[in-house]
Amino acid sequence: MMSTSIKKVYLKSPERGLEVPFKEVELQELDDSGEPVKFHLYDTSGPDGNPKFGLTPLRLPWILDRGDVVEVRTDSVVVPYTKKSEEMGSATLTHRVSQARPGSRPTQLEYARQGLVTPEMEFVAFREGVEPEYVAAEIREGRAILPSNINHPESEPMIIGRNFLVKVNANIGNSVVFSGVDEEVTKLRQAIRYGADTVMDLSTGKDIMTIREAIIRNSPVPVGTVPIYEALERVGGVAEDLNWDIFAETMISQAEQGVDYMTIHAGLLLGHVPLTIPRVTGIVSRGGSILATWCLAHHKENFLYEHFDEVCEILAAYDISVSLGDGLRPGSIADANDEAQFAELKTLGELTSRARAKGVQVMVEGPGHVPLHKIKENVDLQQVVCDDAPFYTLGPLTTDIAPGYDHITSAIGAALIASYGTAMLCYVTPKEHLGLPSLEDVKQGMIAYKIAAHAGDIAKGHPMASKWDDALSRARFDFRWEDQFNLALDPETARSYHDHTLPAPSSKKAHFCSMCGPKFCSMALSQKLRHAWDEEVVSGMEEKAKEFEQLGGSIYVEISGKS
Amino acid sequence: MMSTSIKKVYLKSPERGLEVPFKEVELQELDDSGEPVKFHLYDTSGPDGNPKFGLTPLRLPWILDRGDVVEVRTDSVVVPYTKKSEEMGSATLTHRVSQARPGSRPTQLEYARQGLVTPEMEFVAFREGVEPEYVAAEIREGRAILPSNINHPESEPMIIGRNFLVKVNANIGNSVVFSGVDEEVTKLRQAIRYGADTVMDLSTGKDIMTIREAIIRNSPVPVGTVPIYEALERVGGVAEDLNWDIFAETMISQAEQGVDYMTIHAGLLLGHVPLTIPRVTGIVSRGGSILATWCLAHHKENFLYEHFDEVCEILAAYDISVSLGDGLRPGSIADANDEAQFAELKTLGELTSRARAKGVQVMVEGPGHVPLHKIKENVDLQQVVCDDAPFYTLGPLTTDIAPGYDHITSAIGAALIASYGTAMLCYVTPKEHLGLPSLEDVKQGMIAYKIAAHAGDIAKGHPMASKWDDALSRARFDFRWEDQFNLALDPETARSYHDHTLPAPSSKKAHFCSMCGPKFCSMALSQKLRHAWDEEVVSGMEEKAKEFEQLGGSIYVEISGKS
Repeated sequence: MMSTSIKKVYLKSPERGLEVPFKEVELQELDDSGEPVKFHLYDTSGPDGNPKFGLTPLRLPWILDRGDVVEVRTDSVVVPYTKKSEEMGSATLTHRVSQARPGSRPTQLEYARQGLVTPEMEFVAFREGVEPEYVAAEIREGRAILPSNINHPESEPMIIGRNFLVKVNANIGNSVVFSGVDEEVTKLRQAIRYGADTVMDLSTGKDIMTIREAIIRNSPVPVGTVPIYEALERVGGVAEDLNWDIFAETMISQAEQGVDYMTIHAGLLLGHVPLTIPRVTGIVSRGGSILATWCLAHHKENFLYEHFDEVCEILAAYDISVSLGDGLRPGSIADANDEAQFAELKTLGELTSRARAKGVQVMVEGPGHVPLHKIKENVDLQQVVCDDAPFYTLGPLTTDIAPGYDHITSAIGAALIASYGTAMLCYVTPKEHLGLPSLEDVKQGMIAYKIAAHAGDIAKGHPMASKWDDALSRARFDFRWEDQFNLALDPETARSYHDHTLPAPSSKKAHFCSMCGPKFCSMALSQKLRHAWDEEVVSGMEEKAKEFEQLGGSIYVEISGKS
Repeated sequence: MMSTSIKKVYLKSPERGLEVPFKEVELQELDDSGEPVKFHLYDTSGPDGNPKFGLTPLRLPWILDRGDVVEVRTDSVVVPYTKKSEEMGSATLTHRVSQARPGSRPTQLEYARQGLVTPEMEFVAFREGVEPEYVAAEIREGRAILPSNINHPESEPMIIGRNFLVKVNANIGNSVVFSGVDEEVTKLRQAIRYGADTVMDLSTGKDIMTIREAIIRNSPVPVGTVPIYEALERVGGVAEDLNWDIFAETMISQAEQGVDYMTIHAGLLLGHVPLTIPRVTGIVSRGGSILATWCLAHHKENFLYEHFDEVCEILAAYDISVSLGDGLRPGSIADANDEAQFAELKTLGELTSRARAKGVQVMVEGPGHVPLHKIKENVDLQQVVCDDAPFYTLGPLTTDIAPGYDHITSAIGAALIASYGTAMLCYVTPKEHLGLPSLEDVKQGMIAYKIAAHAGDIAKGHPMASKWDDALSRARFDFRWEDQFNLALDPETARSYHDHTLPAPSSKKAHFCSMCGPKFCSMALSQKLRHAWDEEVVSGMEEKAKEFEQLGGSIYVEISGKS
């Protein structure tokens, strides 16, 4: 059960008075006026919508006010399919479907270039504790993106960029082997409950269309997809039969449903394929292996590279952000930072500027499996090659030896790569390499990645980051157990672990826990120490203290000199 | 159940033919002679001893052959107590109790200085895949220690130093609130099963003596303690009543039982105490808070600092390594790398040389709670101030916000600090800050830390490290599922997760898993791709490949220039 001291609140932004959601924790600590301190945390859990009809379209008035979109069809129309619709299911769209008015590009990037500060920008500014103009500037420079398909008005605006809070994406979606619509919507709710900033629907099995519709209509966070998966389904799973027309058709139907960002593997070129042959684990990206197969079968260049400008025109017409896929990311420690990976990265740099030229918001995907000492190079290279476009990495996993615990092997790499400037982390669950994640796996993956993202935020010095740590640590030192639980990333788990050994309510006020017991609690001793110190400050000790301050200083200089 | 393809084997060292334990994994892969490949992993699980009588004294003949120790008493004598023995339990010693022959120092450091290569050194050399002379040299230089109390002959020699495999310590032991003898011996077995290189018995409750005796007699790995805990019990828990005589008596009785290394908080000085007053979490080390309390109460200098030379004489007489405790380690992100911490570190540097002068092997303890960007400074500073003595850190935790998941918040910091040269990591379990760890917590803590240590080994380029990753990744690419499970850090968990979605035995031969299903398995596609490539190597593509090799090269140079 959730403590009554934790609740969702909506605070009004100073400019337009937009209602922005936060998780409010009421502390046992009192402020100067004797009132309980209220601590506010970034919240992605969204309003409780109706699973059947979805969430209210928060952004619809903002989108319509701009007058640069037109309705392309009335409600309740079934999205058409060329083939295999019986297997894939066909979704009835219950929302207004729009696209750009001819000649206009309704993207946040274009607005930023026009000097506009949209409600979306104001919303994220308030969430992140920065100025709206700063948000607009970061988007204009391409250092950040605000994924916001005009057909997903239910989404609460969020931003992805190295100068903002590090974000976490949760992959959900079924495979032909496993899962269905209800399971996936439940995974969506689990993911946002534990702080997912975006979700990617990677469904590749039956009812792709229906599952995606259910996820988008119920998602308060941006939804990403990899359209090549559905395109492959549309051609009966035969990679060689793929072509641009099928792909474009797939993009458009997903665009109309409201997908906020799409992974496009346009950077994997025919000439890269030979570079993957000597690898230990070849090509481990699903999209990458599909397109490499197509390239080799036809001895032709990747059709997504050839048609990239048309890809961008479709994306711009709905303000879909592009996530340039790294089809050649390393799948093992042995393949990290190899020639194939960096050759593709160079192409992604070229595609970044081509997409921006079309007014499309761009982020770039990264690895994968990378040992600790090779992680920094990935960020440095990507930031230069892709002109500071936001980096979006999967992990990376820092070792291959722990299947069953890859949420941990990768949280280590994720924290480090985040601290170097990666903008969004794609979570990895304990089931990675072994199977499709369960509901519990989604939770464990999210927790590990919220930890990694926050550790990165602290290292980057985000103003909001360490305040949270300090609030929890003060509660810990004061033995405010309830505050310690309620401020925790996962309050229920923290409380239940404490209950394992000290279930009595009185123990929630005790100045010790079962780890050390009453006599050995360092914090209790340390508090007594502090009082003793306050009572009688021995002048002799103050002198000693000064001595040591000097020592502390000198030792430091001495060292920095040496090391 | 453990797979029959995994077994413990003893391989003979080339020099003396010592029997050294390894975990042998028989792979489905065949070598050139058609035999299954056998992969050997470092193993700490020890022989299955008799819980009642303990393990066989492997090292006893080696110790006696050196002729520099004398028997101080016959078997089955009860260690005497000054007081409170009824509460603390009194252990019957069932082993031969020795100490140094007058005038001699039976320590591995002294032997190394004399140019000897002991069986202990040879044993660890074979375990680590290096030359015995190299081991001797690292010990001589003080860059590594080989904890090996002459009264713990059951221990299988291991080494702690930055140029060897990163080691992991598991803290066990009861508190007054919780647990007893059997539970703690079971925790010991759990810890070594999952790869603990040493265990520390941090018992502070009843039966301290009996619990420690049971742990040492059953432990194939070195056992560490913090004697001040027992000393405090001996004075009824009143820190102010502590004195040197009680402490010395405690050290000696633990030395006779066979403790291999002792944490001594001699670096916390009276003058440091004021530096901790402004902290968010004060003093979080139990030993540190006890001694700070004593110093302040008596307005006297820390008696362990005053008597440090006598401390070292006791340690040298049994070849007990000293672990210089960091009583002022930071307990929160806010207190990391502060003046109090670094002032104490300077004192630890002074104590390092004083201990070495007495022939005592030395390692130095480190934090704690440290954000990612402040971790490297800790290692660099410690290595310079303490003249390359092995660094032994607790985590560090990279954020304070996740009680219940501190094995993850700290595994992130542990991996990073290991990659910078930390020699041993003290694990943190999910129960940290909340309670005494359960058997399951010990497992989760160990797994997280074996991952961190291994990620560090890869980054440091230890020759044995990435071979393991490569073996597992090759098995993964070849769909040798059984090999993938058996090579995993936790085979049972990897197998059971795969079974969640594909329980059928046939699926253990399938070229896909439930994550992507048959059509979307990138590795299956990638294998087909490789075969296609082998069959018809398109010359045009080879040229393209060459082009990209050049691109790959140039891009790289270009960047290193810029960044």
